[in-house]
Amino acid sequence: MNDKVFIFDTTLRDGEQVPGCRLNTEEKLVIARALENLGVDIIEAGFPISSPGDFEAVNRIAREIRNSTVCGLTRAVKKDIEVAAEALKPAAKPRIHTGIGTSDQHIFTKLRLDRDQVIERGVAAVKLAKTFVEDVEFYAEDAGRTDNVYLARVIEAVIAAGATVVNIPDTTGYCIPEEYGAKIKFLKENVKNIDKAIISTHCHNDLGMATANSLSGVSNGARQIECTVNGIGERAGNTSMEEVVMAMRKHNMLNFDTAIHTQKIYEISRLVSETMNMPVQPNKAIVGDNAFSHSSGIHQDGVIKSRDNYEIIDPAEVGVSESSIVLTARSGRAALFYRIQKLGHTLDHDALEVAYQAFLKKADTLQTVEDEHLEELLQVLKVA
Amino acid sequence: MNDKVFIFDTTLRDGEQVPGCRLNTEEKLVIARALENLGVDIIEAGFPISSPGDFEAVNRIAREIRNSTVCGLTRAVKKDIEVAAEALKPAAKPRIHTGIGTSDQHIFTKLRLDRDQVIERGVAAVKLAKTFVEDVEFYAEDAGRTDNVYLARVIEAVIAAGATVVNIPDTTGYCIPEEYGAKIKFLKENVKNIDKAIISTHCHNDLGMATANSLSGVSNGARQIECTVNGIGERAGNTSMEEVVMAMRKHNMLNFDTAIHTQKIYEISRLVSETMNMPVQPNKAIVGDNAFSHSSGIHQDGVIKSRDNYEIIDPAEVGVSESSIVLTARSGRAALFYRIQKLGHTLDHDALEVAYQAFLKKADTLQTVEDEHLEELLQVLKVA
Repeated sequence: MNDKVFIFDTTLRDGEQVPGCRLNTEEKLVIARALENLGVDIIEAGFPISSPGDFEAVNRIAREIRNSTVCGLTRAVKKDIEVAAEALKPAAKPRIHTGIGTSDQHIFTKLRLDRDQVIERGVAAVKLAKTFVEDVEFYAEDAGRTDNVYLARVIEAVIAAGATVVNIPDTTGYCIPEEYGAKIKFLKENVKNIDKAIISTHCHNDLGMATANSLSGVSNGARQIECTVNGIGERAGNTSMEEVVMAMRKHNMLNFDTAIHTQKIYEISRLVSETMNMPVQPNKAIVGDNAFSHSSGIHQDGVIKSRDNYEIIDPAEVGVSESSIVLTARSGRAALFYRIQKLGHTLDHDALEVAYQAFLKKADTLQTVEDEHLEELLQVLKVA
Repeated sequence: MNDKVFIFDTTLRDGEQVPGCRLNTEEKLVIARALENLGVDIIEAGFPISSPGDFEAVNRIAREIRNSTVCGLTRAVKKDIEVAAEALKPAAKPRIHTGIGTSDQHIFTKLRLDRDQVIERGVAAVKLAKTFVEDVEFYAEDAGRTDNVYLARVIEAVIAAGATVVNIPDTTGYCIPEEYGAKIKFLKENVKNIDKAIISTHCHNDLGMATANSLSGVSNGARQIECTVNGIGERAGNTSMEEVVMAMRKHNMLNFDTAIHTQKIYEISRLVSETMNMPVQPNKAIVGDNAFSHSSGIHQDGVIKSRDNYEIIDPAEVGVSESSIVLTARSGRAALFYRIQKLGHTLDHDALEVAYQAFLKKADTLQTVEDEHLEELLQVLKVA
């Protein structure tokens, strides 16, 4: 039995705060329903104090979503927490997510406090949130750059104050997997009451390592991953939901699993991309247009012989209809023959060779060779 | 002194073989020149046997590029190697890149050989390539899924045959960093003649871990990274050049560096994206449109106080002119005040509060609030 990892989706909060991604309440509800259907454990629905529109959206989502926990973000500020509690009132499973910066950079430059004052504020915020809801998550902002010994003190204090989940964000996306995993391990080994809370990862992708960092966190004791659909979010974005979920599902060294219905991944990826105006690049892992297409001759030949040669995920597992053999100047005879057969023609060895040479000349002038080009070519050669 | 890691760019080979990325010879020359200016150590210019156009492009690049090594890909096939050698003849520093599949999946399903035959073919290919050029790189295709003990045998044999670089590709993008690093370490410790060659990483991004895998390889003994601009390439693409280069440049736990002139990263990213019709998503690390923009109130306030609160890379280091404070419904008073000041207005505390409430109402109806919206708002409020 693999250990369960909770998926905390922040598409509607960390994702939605990005320029151009703004949604209205109806659009947020559509995405929240899709996230619930996908099997997400926790939906971070917004930051209620930040604007009247955000308050309304969190409130509507709290009213409608029944299976997923609905979470609202706050700073460690009284008004934030009261407003979030108000917005979350109708939720079946409400969670308040509160916290404060813990790195020296944040404490001295941004907050202009000292280390003890930060702990006091964090504890007070958790205690206040606890008067409204049972499920309180605490974030130690910029934990990625926070001294581990001090971080352990913060975490121990907020768990004692009632935090049920403790979130260790790599806010600036600076960590490497070894370092981030070691941080989680340090907390697991040095925070006396750590078993009373779930450790959560929240990684950013500024150096391209959010997925690896999140998994390193889980391997070292975290049991919740915060992520977004398509990895959208502040700057270079958050951990991609589809990447961590499929890595845990497919890799035999990661003995973890989630409740995500993976067949719905492609559909929600498209929904989020279209609704939030955030294009997914063709070479995006799992959900990019090219993620399951094979173009070089060597690869196409291999895939035609057996998909397992170049595919580690069956596209159907993530809701993509099939992998494709795209004909370009880099394609070989095997791919050409495969596509010609799909058009209903059969060529003998010599005819295939003639067709292949003609194909290469044509392909050198085109991006991709489509069925109509093939038909034309076969007619000219009189082999079809 | 940090250890040097060689950057082997395969944008023109693994990148260019992707549907829609096809370039003509002139376009390839433009990119090759930009790669040379960027400081890339090795340019993989193409796969000469694959088409007449590719042969010509490799040949032209070999003639023109003087500072970077120019490399051509081949299978472990006599004709491939002869044609590549011909294409590379004019190069100042030619390299032939030859190899064969070494995983059981590839040996039995794709190649239909046995393990000993694969070693024989690999050795013969290296020996043949050595008759044309001194610098021969060998790839063990699907090394990511190859049994380590057998892989060590293959690598020892090809180094004995003259390979100067041994490439350990995670062809299917299946590895996790711990596993990939352990593979490189195993080779470093179990291949007797390993110090006679440079170990190279070649990772694919199917599970989103190509960057972390490459760096784990380097931490365990590899000294060359194969990558592409913007991470383009077969399926979910290759390791992103900009991510590995900047991670090594910025992270104090990675004691490595490259010869890359990082200030040219943004420019070549745009060149490759436009020439090859491969959009870069806004949330792409380092080179995405949003990589250095800050939108939530908490982040904007922090960045205005000190960039280091939320930025680990100075945008100028990668050739981006400046980080931006984009106004949305998630922005706070600090960001609004910052932008109003930039427009030449000053507001006292009360006027700012009035302007902020009006701003929030406006922002709830807009994706982003631009300068003209601000001017309009200030006029209506008669505070400007």
